[in-house]
Amino acid sequence: VRLFLAAALLLININIMQNPTAAIIIIGDEVLSGRTLDTNTQYIAKKLSEIGVDLIEARVIPDNRQMIIDTIYELKTKYTYIFTTGGIGPTHDDITSEAVAAAFNLPLELHKESFEALKESYASRNQVLNKAREKMAYIPKDAALIPNPISIAPGFRLDNVYVMAGVPYIMEAMLNQILPLLKHGKQVKSKTIDVIIGESLIAADLESIQNKYPEIKIGSYPFKLESQYCTSVVLRSSNYEKLDQAYTELLKLFENYSQVS
Amino acid sequence: VRLFLAAALLLININIMQNPTAAIIIIGDEVLSGRTLDTNTQYIAKKLSEIGVDLIEARVIPDNRQMIIDTIYELKTKYTYIFTTGGIGPTHDDITSEAVAAAFNLPLELHKESFEALKESYASRNQVLNKAREKMAYIPKDAALIPNPISIAPGFRLDNVYVMAGVPYIMEAMLNQILPLLKHGKQVKSKTIDVIIGESLIAADLESIQNKYPEIKIGSYPFKLESQYCTSVVLRSSNYEKLDQAYTELLKLFENYSQVS
Repeated sequence: VRLFLAAALLLININIMQNPTAAIIIIGDEVLSGRTLDTNTQYIAKKLSEIGVDLIEARVIPDNRQMIIDTIYELKTKYTYIFTTGGIGPTHDDITSEAVAAAFNLPLELHKESFEALKESYASRNQVLNKAREKMAYIPKDAALIPNPISIAPGFRLDNVYVMAGVPYIMEAMLNQILPLLKHGKQVKSKTIDVIIGESLIAADLESIQNKYPEIKIGSYPFKLESQYCTSVVLRSSNYEKLDQAYTELLKLFENYSQVS
Repeated sequence: VRLFLAAALLLININIMQNPTAAIIIIGDEVLSGRTLDTNTQYIAKKLSEIGVDLIEARVIPDNRQMIIDTIYELKTKYTYIFTTGGIGPTHDDITSEAVAAAFNLPLELHKESFEALKESYASRNQVLNKAREKMAYIPKDAALIPNPISIAPGFRLDNVYVMAGVPYIMEAMLNQILPLLKHGKQVKSKTIDVIIGESLIAADLESIQNKYPEIKIGSYPFKLESQYCTSVVLRSSNYEKLDQAYTELLKLFENYSQVS
């Protein structure tokens, strides 16, 4: 029994120490056709990183009902949080709300407060709530709203799935309301050394420091500067003491190379 | 029997008419941390679209051996082609080649011609092939090489999986050699109308045209221009006659609205 208790406590402890995890689902034919460069992933990635939520994967899928359902269904049990962007607007190709509802086996319902808010918003611009606009007030039953301070039409949350707009500035406004409500983990901090030398010449140094500091993730990213080979060495960790140590050691190993100023 | 034959012919016919499909796997912690904006997906998407290969999904995953193996394993039977970028360089965090080999249950082997080519290339710059550089000549057994005209270290193909560099200009050089070797489908062409009106006011028009032309995909993308609501309406299809017809009909429906010049 004592052993069992110790094991249980250890598990609880590991669980407490681990950061929440996340996946992003970018929904939109326009990204897969190459028409649109997805920048939502990078924005969400940076924001999650700041609050210690570990982004494990991102997927781009088409405006296809079955693929939305399958992807939501697969990922929602794998990660603490799922964030989707795209497909909640007024037109025929906006099918995300209905598909997410289906993934949870829930009906779409007219959300009265959203309906009134949209009606009021359009009335203030001397416009009417036509059928297309009304569509944006249909939300899966019992979903929690994600307010949209910009164009009123809300996003929503079902369990751990956050459904947001695809237009970047609207998505950003939604995300920034969601972030304070999430479990925060320990922020992964990073330190970067941009050194004027090709990465293959410092590979052995990087590997030795990586082996010495398993709690740090060391990434090596080559780039060119006026035809000189350079390397951006990025150290990432939520153990700030070890991060400082590894950084200091690498700086010392690199003292004979110039750094990009 | 006649019915069976007719059904078989129909199936063959459908198969011939369908475009090849593809998925992209972007491998790199730097994209998931928000450090790097992925532009490889858009480049590959545009190029595939030009040759009639339908990109069905794109995934960003970390430099994590098991996730690389699992993702390759899952996707390679789902689509005609898989394209990966990232993780084939000389440093400790470049683990893609080994992981892809493992997904196919193959060993990594020193590829003699690549080894010689790399040695020669470095010798021409008065440099030696150190252990890190040598690593780039290790390729899964029996893989076909994807030549790298820029920095020599090759990518490779195993069955339908194309493994390319992550640095955009190197990836692009590799992809442009691969494209002529792929099965080409019928190119999906697109026509765009940028109209100065909010999408909710043309939603009914769009839906009616969408219903009339099921072989066209009509996407509606809102944007703002000097605080005016605008909509980019994109029609995509490999049926060019229907595409022209739908486009002409939409232009007529929009004749009372200004277009973005």
